Order: sequence, then structure tokens, then C-alpha cells
Amino acid sequence: MAAITDYKFRVEPQDIDFTSRVRLSSLITSILNTAGQDADNKKFGVVDLNTANHTWVLSRMAVELDLRPKQNTEYLVRTWVSDWERLLSTRNFTLRTSQDQVFAHAVTQWAIIDLESRRPVNLSDHSIDGSGHIADVPSPIDKPTKLAKINPTHTREYKVTYSDIDFNKHVTSMSYVKIALDMLPIEIFESDAKLRLDIHFLRECLYGQTLQVECELMNDVALFEIKNNDGNVAFKASFKFL
Amino acid sequence: MAAITDYKFRVEPQDIDFTSRVRLSSLITSILNTAGQDADNKKFGVVDLNTANHTWVLSRMAVELDLRPKQNTEYLVRTWVSDWERLLSTRNFTLRTSQDQVFAHAVTQWAIIDLESRRPVNLSDHSIDGSGHIADVPSPIDKPTKLAKINPTHTREYKVTYSDIDFNKHVTSMSYVKIALDMLPIEIFESDAKLRLDIHFLRECLYGQTLQVECELMNDVALFEIKNNDGNVAFKASFKFL
Repeated sequence: MAAITDYKFRVEPQDIDFTSRVRLSSLITSILNTAGQDADNKKFGVVDLNTANHTWVLSRMAVELDLRPKQNTEYLVRTWVSDWERLLSTRNFTLRTSQDQVFAHAVTQWAIIDLESRRPVNLSDHSIDGSGHIADVPSPIDKPTKLAKINPTHTREYKVTYSDIDFNKHVTSMSYVKIALDMLPIEIFESDAKLRLDIHFLRECLYGQTLQVECELMNDVALFEIKNNDGNVAFKASFKFL
Repeated sequence: MAAITDYKFRVEPQDIDFTSRVRLSSLITSILNTAGQDADNKKFGVVDLNTANHTWVLSRMAVELDLRPKQNTEYLVRTWVSDWERLLSTRNFTLRTSQDQVFAHAVTQWAIIDLESRRPVNLSDHSIDGSGHIADVPSPIDKPTKLAKINPTHTREYKVTYSDIDFNKHVTSMSYVKIALDMLPIEIFESDAKLRLDIHFLRECLYGQTLQVECELMNDVALFEIKNNDGNVAFKASFKFL
């Protein structure tokens, strides 16, 4: 099976925002579904890890977006793994329309954890072996960067509900992104400017928790932190116009 | 073009809940996307109405669900219009898996409104004519029923954010359903019982508004009301185990 593989998507009615263009959170859903599907197809996905009582966990993510396609646009997500290290595997993405217009790139970094201890597991000597599926193609954009400390300009509380959670009753990656981006002034989404999103997933938030959502809004950059019930930072992100 | 038409869907990773089965809100999204697509294909959809500065508005909906399929299940949504009256058109749905197992039915009632006045428009002498696409097949379940007055057992405030709105900055049908169902105790979604949902869409809620969400939880029935900024009821629903 080729190390570089394409997966097909379409911007559906529920994916667009008030500007009639696809939401960032919907693109991130396509990117993460591609990761899951590709790893499963190549026999190092969650299905195979679960037999060892392990699973993949998304640690960091960076997305650069040149434009947001409109409803009904068909697009391809191309994905390949470029690194398979002791603690992290790096998976890359290039998004292009069916007219071959590249409109986004992404880099994700993944850890394997033990489902019981919730602790990281060594990838390099793991029984599942993704290293045979590595493409010698560098990441298309800078890897997820360090995020500055935040001095919040506005905050809100967010109660985790049924709609926010996955099969584990943990908040989904997409929900964190929605909760963060919903802090921005809506006019920001009218912009056509290129943008970059950096995300760190640090801890798991659970059903029923009341999260503290903090946003620091500056010129062309916004920083976000989401804290769980115990006041620990669970999610950090930066949204930047390029 | 046949009056009865099938549209294909699949339960994607983002569609499932903590029980690993499709969320009701995701099925409703498929049902409403089918309605939009089918009406457009048959030349009486929003695309054609917009040329007369009119649009379709969903007024009432009923769904009966026998079971909730799991992730990756492929399913067909069959749709047909059974009534084209002065103020309302009735569109019906039957959902079946690709193994031909019927698992849900739905009935929706739609009005045409003028985009400027937001007032209803007469369907029977409208320049777009859906009456040629009526199938002489009755609705598969009872039409949306009257909903009893609610005596709330619990309430919450809900601030409308960017993620909740459509191209008009109005709250989407799917968001109302999510906001309502998120009021239920989560154990309800573990049940395998058949259920029925009745929904009335009464007014439009807008970006930035703080909604009052009310729920009356009884044995096997829950009633919901969502009120807009002015205290007027915008959404009513009932959720009932059958």
C-alpha cells in the first residue's frame, strides 16, 4: 500500500458558516477522520492498537489555511507519515479541491497510550509497526510551535454536554476547537486572509465538567486556553493571520 | 424524475455518541440535507425559490427511531412529498441500512416565506410547482402532533455562538435539537427503546442572543422549550420512548 494516500470529502450543508464557506472545525474533522482511516487501512490504527489495550492520542496539531471552500466543493485530503519516533509519530496532510487547487496543509503529532494507565507507550519497539509506511517527504508546514503564556482579555465558563463527547465520554478534538473559536469576534470569520492554527492537547476533559475558557485577543493573533475542573490546562491554541 | 428518491449516507466518526451509535442530531442533519437536495434536484428547492426572493422554512418535524446504527453503517434516506397545500408542504422519509433494515421514519412540514417580510407565501399558486412531484403514498408515521404546555423541571441559559448559526446568522435546526437533547440525563441515550421526537420551529433565534432553555422531565417523556431574547418561544419539542 502506497505511503502517500488520498481520501475524498465534500463540503456538506452542515459544514458551512455564515460566510457560506467551510468551517475550520469541519476541515479538522476531515483531517482527523483521514488519519484514523489511513492508519486503520495500513494496520497500525486504533483497531489494531486496541488488541494490545493501547490507543492513539492526538498531542499537537498545526493547520495553515489559504482559503475556505464553499458548500458542495469536493476535496481530497492527502496524508503521509514522515516520522516514527520513540514518543511521537508525525502525520502530514495536504488538502486540495477536485480542481487541484491546494488550499490547506496540516501537521499532527500522535502518541500511543495505554488505555488503563493512560500513560505514553514507546512507539519504536511496539508490536504494531508503522515505520514501514513512512514517506520520505517532509512536513508541508512548520510543526506545531510552542505557545506563549496567555493573559486573557475575555473568559467564559463552558459546561460539557452530551454533544461534546466521544465514546469515552471525553471532549472530542472538534469540540475543543469549536469552544475556542466561538470566543472570537464573529467578524474575524469574514476575513479572506491566510491563517495558521496551532493546537496542543494536554489533558482530557470529561462529561459534566465545567471548563474555564480563556482568550487573549491581540492584533492578528488570538491565544486560547481551556482549563478543566481542577484548574489544569487541558487545551492550548493560537489562531494567527499570516 | 421519480417522485420517490433515495439518497446515500454513512455514519462517520463525528456522528456517533458515547454509546458508539449515531446521534439523533446527525440523523436529522441527513434528513434535512436530503430534503434540500431532493427539492433542488426537482427544481422546487431553495435555489429556484431564491430567484423569487422566497425560501423554504421548516415548520414541524416528527421522527420515529427503532434503533441507532453504529459507525461506518451505510444507509439510504428515501424521501417523497405527499401533500402540497396552501400553507404547508409535507415531505416524508424512511431510513434503511444498506442491508435493507428500516430503522427510522420522519415527517416534515414546510412553509415558503418571503425573504424580506419573513411572512408565509401561498404555495398553491406559486410559480415553482412541486405538485407534479407528489407521490400517492401516505406519511409513514403520524404527522407532528400538538405539544403540551411545559412545567420546567430544569432550565439553563444558552448563548448563541458562531458554531450554532447558518448563512443567515440564524440558529440552525441541528443546533436547536442539540441544545434541547443536551438537557437530558445522559443515561437516556444508553436505552435501546424505540423513541419519537416531535419538533415545532416557531421563531428564529439569532447570533449573540442568550436563549432560555427549559426541560420538563417525566417518566418516558421529556418536553422542551427554547425562548429567544424577548422571552418568546422559538422552539418546542417532545422526546418520548415508545
